[in-house]
Amino acid sequence: MRVITVSRQFGSGGRELGKRLADALGFKYYDKHIIEAAAEEAKKGGTYTDSMAASTLVSLPLTFARSFSVPLISPAEMAGTLGAQHAAMKELASSGDCVVVGRSGNVVLGDETPFRIFVYADMDSRIARCRGRAKADEADLTDRAYEKKIKRIDKQRTSAHRIVSDIKWGDPLGYDLCINTTGIEIKSIVAQTAEYAKHFFENNGK
Amino acid sequence: MRVITVSRQFGSGGRELGKRLADALGFKYYDKHIIEAAAEEAKKGGTYTDSMAASTLVSLPLTFARSFSVPLISPAEMAGTLGAQHAAMKELASSGDCVVVGRSGNVVLGDETPFRIFVYADMDSRIARCRGRAKADEADLTDRAYEKKIKRIDKQRTSAHRIVSDIKWGDPLGYDLCINTTGIEIKSIVAQTAEYAKHFFENNGK
Repeated sequence: MRVITVSRQFGSGGRELGKRLADALGFKYYDKHIIEAAAEEAKKGGTYTDSMAASTLVSLPLTFARSFSVPLISPAEMAGTLGAQHAAMKELASSGDCVVVGRSGNVVLGDETPFRIFVYADMDSRIARCRGRAKADEADLTDRAYEKKIKRIDKQRTSAHRIVSDIKWGDPLGYDLCINTTGIEIKSIVAQTAEYAKHFFENNGK
Repeated sequence: MRVITVSRQFGSGGRELGKRLADALGFKYYDKHIIEAAAEEAKKGGTYTDSMAASTLVSLPLTFARSFSVPLISPAEMAGTLGAQHAAMKELASSGDCVVVGRSGNVVLGDETPFRIFVYADMDSRIARCRGRAKADEADLTDRAYEKKIKRIDKQRTSAHRIVSDIKWGDPLGYDLCINTTGIEIKSIVAQTAEYAKHFFENNGK
């Protein structure tokens, strides 16, 4: 399978890039909502089907992941939940070419030799991107408040990544290509990133 | 002017990528040898011409920069030398589209809004690349010895970069695109990197 993983700083536009890459390449698209739903379904003994993935996608606009709300669960619950999600992710990735956003896919899907992208931007750019897509209850936050929340979420991603890898989240060595989206319109970098991915797969005989 | 800067970990193949990018795009190519020569020439009151750049290029094969030898000069001399080199670099960059490898070009040429690339790779890959291109007197070094020398040179680059920027050398935020060359043949990534650069320049109205 050809797998692209997109890891991203909060507010860098990585999720949008992942979705657009999937569209451009005709790959399936999975993010945390789809993976969480698949893990839940597996827990109930069911199977997560493509049609469910499609309906989840329809019901979740691109802005959905921007919520700052964080569920409160224990470390043990977290480990169990992550384990189930990683299993679900592997299952999904083994079923066809795909783009996986988040969930430490770069590490968890390592056996698939994925093309691993990291998306980042400077803080001002990330705040502006968050503000531009904020839900009503977050629209009038100050820049300082946005920055605090952005850093908190990146910290959570750092912690979750530490569970599966010795390489720090965001360390370039964990990725094949790191893209700075500061001042960049995401749709303007889709074509050349797709080219990069295609060459990567060709080089790896895929 | 359209300027591409290539910063690179020692042994990552960044210099080769820079040279190939210049060839692919029809840009001029400058690296530390050319910039040092231009700075020397300026000190003597002369002007560094394209024909000199060309003859320097001819006399310096791509493997030349791989030498581990380091000149011993004082901090004051170093600062003066760097200042002269930065002035020479700006002069060269203002005369036409170009690729500049090393010498903190990403910062020094900031006014040109350059497309800033950072090239890196894991240590094994860098050792292998150095070994493959080593001069006779370095060919039988152990891996450990290579690693030590590689780290020393990266440390020098970190120090030189600190003089001109608050952003640490190698921090992705200092670059537009970071490319992992681990296990990659440099010539296989030239075309798509050139595409990236072209889009970047178009986005910036160049």
